[in-house]
Amino acid sequence: MDVFEALYTTRAMRRVKEDPIPDNIIKSMIDSAIRAPSGSNRQNWKFLVVTDKNIREKLSNIYRETWDYYINSFLNSAKDPGASSLKKQNDKDIETIRRISNSASWLAENYHKVPLLVLALSRNDPTGSSIYPAIWNLMLAARGHGIGTCLTTVMSFETEKVFEVLNIPNDKGWTLNATITAGYPLGKWGVAERKPVDDVTYLNTWGNKTNWNLEQPLWNY
Amino acid sequence: MDVFEALYTTRAMRRVKEDPIPDNIIKSMIDSAIRAPSGSNRQNWKFLVVTDKNIREKLSNIYRETWDYYINSFLNSAKDPGASSLKKQNDKDIETIRRISNSASWLAENYHKVPLLVLALSRNDPTGSSIYPAIWNLMLAARGHGIGTCLTTVMSFETEKVFEVLNIPNDKGWTLNATITAGYPLGKWGVAERKPVDDVTYLNTWGNKTNWNLEQPLWNY
Repeated sequence: MDVFEALYTTRAMRRVKEDPIPDNIIKSMIDSAIRAPSGSNRQNWKFLVVTDKNIREKLSNIYRETWDYYINSFLNSAKDPGASSLKKQNDKDIETIRRISNSASWLAENYHKVPLLVLALSRNDPTGSSIYPAIWNLMLAARGHGIGTCLTTVMSFETEKVFEVLNIPNDKGWTLNATITAGYPLGKWGVAERKPVDDVTYLNTWGNKTNWNLEQPLWNY
Repeated sequence: MDVFEALYTTRAMRRVKEDPIPDNIIKSMIDSAIRAPSGSNRQNWKFLVVTDKNIREKLSNIYRETWDYYINSFLNSAKDPGASSLKKQNDKDIETIRRISNSASWLAENYHKVPLLVLALSRNDPTGSSIYPAIWNLMLAARGHGIGTCLTTVMSFETEKVFEVLNIPNDKGWTLNATITAGYPLGKWGVAERKPVDDVTYLNTWGNKTNWNLEQPLWNY
């Protein structure tokens, strides 16, 4: 697969099949992850590959409880006419949030069926600059093998419970940066629509517009 | 270029030529960056493309001063027999630090000659999970075009000075996550040596070794 196909079409793929992922693909995902750079090349990372059904079910319960709590807080604040969380959003933003929320709720309900979870942990990386390139490499490598992934940080809010299930020591400074869900996609690959480049890019000085007129993605699927 | 070639060979390429990078490649880098996922698809990011010689020189001065301060603090602490920063390191680690330090010093001395700087800024992303995938996409896209990049966070320690040079408002909540240097490489591409996968990966439970015996990278250059 061409590198630009991977860069343009690796989007959050939450809906996946139950079919297990072959070991060789899992190995390739981790081996790609560790090629990413890290500050002073410290590689202060650990990857926890979870395929065991019983452990996936335990993690699934934590995920679902945390997600339910989060989405209910969000929806309650949205219902409150005095709350500001949705007031600043326009209709398109609200539609996007609804779509993501539906997809994320699907993931919460079906988390125990996701065949592979990879937990990425790091130490001494307060900015995230040393771990997220590795995480993203893992997800791009998965895409290269036709595997859909989603980066979730929900379980990082319940680190204590997750660490207990997986026997991770809580006195060694490890941070749970992300849990990546992975499986063969139920949905279709495609190029995600984004705010245009001109809206998020300046040239030489803040506020100096680029006017590149990139209305369409420069790479087509 | 194959996606795995990009994933395995995109390493910190600090030493680059002065030749300018064509606009079409810069556009492709940013257009690839924005395809990355971000939390709730918020895309709370800005990319500041700096090619202007005068501005690059001003940023170069900030970079060099900050780097000199950092490296001198580090070397002084290493000379102090009571300091622990280097004591825990083995010879191989020290050699790696020396090699990176030489390469980083080259960059500090030649920063004003680097033809392209891209500053990546974000808001409301305390973990970095929403900006670093975009930054890493930008660097992988550069690799796809034969452009070498390096992710540096040095200038984030001097945000006030950098914001002044570039006219970035300091009351809008923007964080400078990284400055990416970019240019045609002086060095050669290659697969970076890393700690083996088995050393940084566990299966199903913390401490449960994988024993995958991946002594060599799964993809060869």
